[in-house]
Amino acid sequence: MSLSEFAIINKYFSTCGNMRPDCLLGIGDDAALLRIADRDLVVTQDTLVAGVHFFHNAEPYGLGHKCLAVNLSDLAAMGAEPAWCTLAITLPTADPNWLDAFARGFCQLATSYGVQLIGGDTTKGPLMISVTALGLTPKWQALRRSGATPHDHIYVSGNLGDAGLALYLLSENYTINDDIRQRLDMPTPRIALGLALRQIASAAIDISDGIAADLDHILQASGNLGADVYLNQIPNSAAFARHVTLEDQKLSFMNSGDDYELCFTVPESRTVTITEISAKLHLKLTHIGNISSEPGLRIHNKDGKLLSLHKNGYQHFT
Amino acid sequence: MSLSEFAIINKYFSTCGNMRPDCLLGIGDDAALLRIADRDLVVTQDTLVAGVHFFHNAEPYGLGHKCLAVNLSDLAAMGAEPAWCTLAITLPTADPNWLDAFARGFCQLATSYGVQLIGGDTTKGPLMISVTALGLTPKWQALRRSGATPHDHIYVSGNLGDAGLALYLLSENYTINDDIRQRLDMPTPRIALGLALRQIASAAIDISDGIAADLDHILQASGNLGADVYLNQIPNSAAFARHVTLEDQKLSFMNSGDDYELCFTVPESRTVTITEISAKLHLKLTHIGNISSEPGLRIHNKDGKLLSLHKNGYQHFT
Repeated sequence: MSLSEFAIINKYFSTCGNMRPDCLLGIGDDAALLRIADRDLVVTQDTLVAGVHFFHNAEPYGLGHKCLAVNLSDLAAMGAEPAWCTLAITLPTADPNWLDAFARGFCQLATSYGVQLIGGDTTKGPLMISVTALGLTPKWQALRRSGATPHDHIYVSGNLGDAGLALYLLSENYTINDDIRQRLDMPTPRIALGLALRQIASAAIDISDGIAADLDHILQASGNLGADVYLNQIPNSAAFARHVTLEDQKLSFMNSGDDYELCFTVPESRTVTITEISAKLHLKLTHIGNISSEPGLRIHNKDGKLLSLHKNGYQHFT
Repeated sequence: MSLSEFAIINKYFSTCGNMRPDCLLGIGDDAALLRIADRDLVVTQDTLVAGVHFFHNAEPYGLGHKCLAVNLSDLAAMGAEPAWCTLAITLPTADPNWLDAFARGFCQLATSYGVQLIGGDTTKGPLMISVTALGLTPKWQALRRSGATPHDHIYVSGNLGDAGLALYLLSENYTINDDIRQRLDMPTPRIALGLALRQIASAAIDISDGIAADLDHILQASGNLGADVYLNQIPNSAAFARHVTLEDQKLSFMNSGDDYELCFTVPESRTVTITEISAKLHLKLTHIGNISSEPGLRIHNKDGKLLSLHKNGYQHFT
């Protein structure tokens, strides 16, 4: 069975997510029409490519979830409330079972965060998905990478390394447990945390390329600052700790991405607030180190010894 | 020579298009931050895939132009003033010469329409480009597909069929002249026309799938209306007329897309205004037929005979 482009849109995507009154015109015209009111608009776009960001045979429900989740994670890092998204999907064939599962994964996540799918494009070609997500913040309240200052405390949400571990184990054909696999396939965008950090965090970023590379973006954007990070303070899951025991292995996972936790900085005076936010959101927020005026990222082990990182996060074309 | 993802962004795209004061934060954070003021936001996304929308060896300058132009064309059809865009580009390799030409084509068009590139994604994979364009209209003034009423006059801008003819001639390995080739490779988004048609046109669409299919979108969106279109009134270039002489050949070009002219409807009382707009913009606007309450698209030849179309525009997966 083959479906036309318009049939795919009508059947799977014409009502997807939460129908919002501030969307004046959604799917079905040359463009969507939105009303912003008195807020700032936050816009991000991320692409997932088969064979690069996911396995060619990836389960479509998870893929539908993930391609939106990684974009919502960028909105979270900006402290934005998600509002709308567009979906450009390129498919080798129009398989109804695949599309049905993909659309369920995508639209369920959209609904759960109040996001409306407002447009996009459906084309034939190598499997690839590019989502643009739009969110809103009160004027001037968006979080940026650029506001860290020396002595700020550096925090991360949740646990780090699970997604990278899952990817490693799958690549080596090991069997892995569902918890770890979910962390790779179905990341949770930390939207509530992003909203709670408005006017509290001095800088924020989501961890997509690995904590080492992503923290470095904060350091650079904040004016070539440095950081001291303590390896034994980096939060890992019990499953991670079972698989990854040696110090230099743990260190290498600082370069593993795809966790989609937030890394953020706060002035020391606001650390009590972070404890309160953690309790309120039932989300672990861990102090992993501090910002310094001395440039460079320094990783310390539990004996105070300085460790060196070999590479800097995932990059395409290198 | 190979370039990293971040080097590509810095070198080719970090300042692209017109730097706008209403962009509070552009490329370089988790997302861009925009201020909309008291207007409506128009959002569209279109993807071009190598081997589907363009030849694998397509000249990169034209490709950079075209991937933005097709999105600006959607904004034109909404009567929106272009403001910002994001660019997701997937490349098999990072060839500096290719990237330089592509970026010039893209950024020159952006600059000429006051558009700022505010973000996107650069990934490795099969060649494909997905652009999201954002535009602005005064509140409630966007053009839609849905406002046509019986007896409205149907107009098209420019000439139709050149892009389809160029594609046909290239596919058959004929040599073609530059004028025709430009119409396929470097379409002109009809932004000024879209702006002029605000509060004048009753419905509008851009011609990307062929006049037959695109006019049908207006008919469906306006409540299952019909149209009478006169084949000999459809404007063609002199080059088109030289190549395409027979009535049934001309008819088949009603299914050829990629012209990116606008098709729009106006109440009969406003046709004088259309003549004035045409003169002011130095752009041919041709009355090709009329909206009817009787459903269906009827094509008439110069003897008044009804002609039948065999297929309905370009669709993926059929």
